[in-house]
Amino acid sequence: MSQKKKPLLKPLESLSMTDRVENKLREFFEENAFKPGDALPNELEIAERLQVSRSVVREALSRLRMLGMIEARPRRGMVMSRPDVLGGIERVLNPYILGKDTLKDIFELRLILEMGLAELLFARKTSKAITELEAIVQKQVQLKTLSKEDEIEFHGKLYEMSGNETLKRFQILLFPVFDHVYEYSKKEVEIKIQDPVTHKDLVNVLKKGTPEKFRAAMHKHLSPYYQSI
Amino acid sequence: MSQKKKPLLKPLESLSMTDRVENKLREFFEENAFKPGDALPNELEIAERLQVSRSVVREALSRLRMLGMIEARPRRGMVMSRPDVLGGIERVLNPYILGKDTLKDIFELRLILEMGLAELLFARKTSKAITELEAIVQKQVQLKTLSKEDEIEFHGKLYEMSGNETLKRFQILLFPVFDHVYEYSKKEVEIKIQDPVTHKDLVNVLKKGTPEKFRAAMHKHLSPYYQSI
Repeated sequence: MSQKKKPLLKPLESLSMTDRVENKLREFFEENAFKPGDALPNELEIAERLQVSRSVVREALSRLRMLGMIEARPRRGMVMSRPDVLGGIERVLNPYILGKDTLKDIFELRLILEMGLAELLFARKTSKAITELEAIVQKQVQLKTLSKEDEIEFHGKLYEMSGNETLKRFQILLFPVFDHVYEYSKKEVEIKIQDPVTHKDLVNVLKKGTPEKFRAAMHKHLSPYYQSI
Repeated sequence: MSQKKKPLLKPLESLSMTDRVENKLREFFEENAFKPGDALPNELEIAERLQVSRSVVREALSRLRMLGMIEARPRRGMVMSRPDVLGGIERVLNPYILGKDTLKDIFELRLILEMGLAELLFARKTSKAITELEAIVQKQVQLKTLSKEDEIEFHGKLYEMSGNETLKRFQILLFPVFDHVYEYSKKEVEIKIQDPVTHKDLVNVLKKGTPEKFRAAMHKHLSPYYQSI
């Protein structure tokens, strides 16, 4: 499972001037506790203070703009901004370029999250959300097989019910990647499902059970995947 | 918990030319299944094909270089590259600019992960790793209080034992953020610890118990945090 990866801190000599200016700026913002809305020095000032060319500064600022850390405001110049914490990961989730090990790590992450979610689900479930979940299941029991979209609809609703917005978005980002790994893992293991637990069963446990019972049911529901780890 | 956030797909008119070129390039790479090492068109070619200025292309390429999606190779020009899946999230984990809701989401994520980890831990634990974990605990039982570093050492070892490299790195990135949220949540709840489970207890369950028992123990161990959700 462990993967040879570039270390997070690259040796200084392999950093381009733009890398160094980008790092410097992020450090500067954090050390000085800049908050969203705070005005920032402009491109020319930064270039002069760091004694680098304006084009290097422009590139570094463009990177930070992409991450949502800074933004340009009309008549106010650049200000600090509230980044989308998942924006960076969203951009690189291209299954053709991620390593096989990383894809497998991400796939396992789904198993971990769905098992770990139980406490939040029971702490935050509402009768309205349960009714919505039952409507999803009602539609699905009439189907012979569940499509990827059906799976996303059911499990996505569970993430939503956890009340954790970041987690819900994370799951939506990751789903296309699961596909790739699942295809790959299907070839490797012979999948035997004993005592399968359906979406309907899961809803019943969520209504009347406990986090422990829900987890036991979810483990059985996910057992084809667990057999491949 | 839910947070007002810019939607992931921004309206076209609010996208800068650099945003659009960056999106276009990422789409182009994925649609054409470019793989790490594949040669890419150069800056001038891209500018001509997209009919935009070279400086816009240079900025967009600089963003992709930051994410590790492309890199320059001596005498080969630009090639596709294997990104660090956590590089983007690492760059924005600045507690001063992330929203309070996002910080709370991240904090909950830790609780979810530590509960969901049990199956992988039991599937992959080795006697060598258990011995190392016991050495950590042995050192800690002599201390009156555990520092943040002690906590990281113990829980980090668990993530390591899960055999999921991405998860382990994720945890290392998130720890500084937990601090901020923990300080904030301590003010909100009165923490009562009943039947505390220590690191030593957790190791014993890991050695002789089951994933279910380990999870029950971990839940008690994390109960001060669970009381704040």
